Amino acid sequence: MSRIFNFSAGPAVLPLEVLQQAQAEMVDYRGSGMSIMEMSHRGKEYSAVHAEAMANVRELLGLTDEYEVLFIQGGASLQFAMLPMNFLPKDGAADYVNSGHWAAAAIKQARLVGQVKVVADCEKEIPARVPEAAELSWTPGAAYAHITSNETISGAQWKSFPVTDAPLVADMSSDILSRPFDAKPFSMIYAGAQKNLGPAGVALVVIRKSFAEKGSKGLPAMLRYVTYVENQSMYNTPPCYSIYMLALTTRWLKQFGLERMHRQNRDKAAKLYAAIDGSSFYRGTAAKHCRSDMNVTFRLPTEELEERFCTEASKAGLKGLKGHRSVGGVRASIYNAFPVEGVDVLIGFMKDFERRCG
Amino acid sequence: MSRIFNFSAGPAVLPLEVLQQAQAEMVDYRGSGMSIMEMSHRGKEYSAVHAEAMANVRELLGLTDEYEVLFIQGGASLQFAMLPMNFLPKDGAADYVNSGHWAAAAIKQARLVGQVKVVADCEKEIPARVPEAAELSWTPGAAYAHITSNETISGAQWKSFPVTDAPLVADMSSDILSRPFDAKPFSMIYAGAQKNLGPAGVALVVIRKSFAEKGSKGLPAMLRYVTYVENQSMYNTPPCYSIYMLALTTRWLKQFGLERMHRQNRDKAAKLYAAIDGSSFYRGTAAKHCRSDMNVTFRLPTEELEERFCTEASKAGLKGLKGHRSVGGVRASIYNAFPVEGVDVLIGFMKDFERRCG
Repeated sequence: MSRIFNFSAGPAVLPLEVLQQAQAEMVDYRGSGMSIMEMSHRGKEYSAVHAEAMANVRELLGLTDEYEVLFIQGGASLQFAMLPMNFLPKDGAADYVNSGHWAAAAIKQARLVGQVKVVADCEKEIPARVPEAAELSWTPGAAYAHITSNETISGAQWKSFPVTDAPLVADMSSDILSRPFDAKPFSMIYAGAQKNLGPAGVALVVIRKSFAEKGSKGLPAMLRYVTYVENQSMYNTPPCYSIYMLALTTRWLKQFGLERMHRQNRDKAAKLYAAIDGSSFYRGTAAKHCRSDMNVTFRLPTEELEERFCTEASKAGLKGLKGHRSVGGVRASIYNAFPVEGVDVLIGFMKDFERRCG
Repeated sequence: MSRIFNFSAGPAVLPLEVLQQAQAEMVDYRGSGMSIMEMSHRGKEYSAVHAEAMANVRELLGLTDEYEVLFIQGGASLQFAMLPMNFLPKDGAADYVNSGHWAAAAIKQARLVGQVKVVADCEKEIPARVPEAAELSWTPGAAYAHITSNETISGAQWKSFPVTDAPLVADMSSDILSRPFDAKPFSMIYAGAQKNLGPAGVALVVIRKSFAEKGSKGLPAMLRYVTYVENQSMYNTPPCYSIYMLALTTRWLKQFGLERMHRQNRDKAAKLYAAIDGSSFYRGTAAKHCRSDMNVTFRLPTEELEERFCTEASKAGLKGLKGHRSVGGVRASIYNAFPVEGVDVLIGFMKDFERRCG
């Protein structure tokens, strides 16, 4: 077995220990004589896994009993629709901050459901950034206010969250559990699992119970948050294996420690940004004060050099560095499970590449 | 490792060879240095898996180019909602056959969206059955006609499908790919994967392209079938690992042969029904002409004996035999991957139990 350094933006690298445990348990889960994939979701083995996944998230986010931890299929993209379907009334409006590609994607889906007010727009700005507090013109009486905590494509990240009168909702798909934060100001947080939580196939939704209860009552059951609240996300068969992997990944994170993970994430990103800033060959694409600790984006002098950089890096075992097809450039996604060593190897490669081609 | 006989109704037993292959490939998929769970869904390795899953389904169901094979999250339960949201207009009606628990669940969700006509109702009949052709009073001009090919809980299965003027739609969650059938009369077929196709976390949807295009245009992208058609089910990150397991499971089925699988399924079920009919202690709960080959349901003289039967069977390595909590009794789910040997062991156990307790 030879593992490569996987800079993929998501699905993304998982902790090796987690994969090895899943491998060992694949055919016979803890002497049950079955794979976790083959078990009734209402049986005692899977129920314990499901409960652990919820408890781990609750502990890591420091959630009070006011919140429920839900697991919903369809990724963050289905949340883009469920959120307004539940909470955006026909005669109301919801506030959205347009900070980039993913914020814009959420806005587009919400507009199919109701009225959206864009309270600030820096989607297309280069360098990429999130708005300053002073730029945000919140709508009085808005149904909710939506932000995107980290823009995976542009590499811009909120370093502190805005204060809003309306219920605050965040898409935290690409930086959830990468750093401690106070969940109390949020009415809802959602995140596709496939960056920091586990494999694709499940979205984590943390929701204030009183907010969930305000959701539209006429929707089909699978599109109502209360259905998941009332059934511990087992109204129908949940995506058991994705949730099992999420339980293992959050267990691994608990053992490592969230504060310690945050320091490691900052150090990993800081080293990479220092390598970029210390060179006139590489050039960061996000504004310095909101550079993402998860997705480090940069350009080279030409697109030809960028392509050669990614091709040669791939041959050297540094995979998935190509920027998103919508923006080009280079992107190093360095989520929780991405090893420190891989950052050092990338920096070494960057120096060598600059020496040869700069 | 000691595998038990897993009669679970779903999630259900998977082929041992498939699990062993998944285990071997878990940490390093075919020399890529990554797990299939960690890869970009747009990379060449996962794209090949995704394409194989679609091609296997297409081949096994004998689909023409008029059909698209889609993978959608949310299970059959989300299909209960997506189907009427897409195809049931405000001024129209859809026909549903109420053949049992799952048909009733589909009806309940459709009624939240629009007008439903129940063209026949035998939901609560004992013995369980599906309606005769003569009982079905289809509505002229119905938006579509919906059936449930196999009722997992009651153990009643359609042995031939009705002919309808309206587009025919079937929930085939619990018997898809257990037998050959002509897909041409169907406009849409859907099935949660966790019985015959793989693990939970993905639903297979086979849809006639011209039908998909008739879907409501105002819905959020994730709730429109055309979104999946136009993006080969990669509009957003698909549930990659569930689809990988579906690819392996359908590959295994292709190697075994669908006709041969059908014969094996019929033989497995026939042996069990013969054991039931040959005893006055056990009593089948589905009408003989529509007994399911997938879910064999029966009762014992008392609930106490049923509980003792399931407890002792479980100790003997025969797990998951307890009937659904809504109906009680005993249920042996014997999907494609359930081994012939396990049926023989169950019959032996039944004879011994009757001798001791009858």
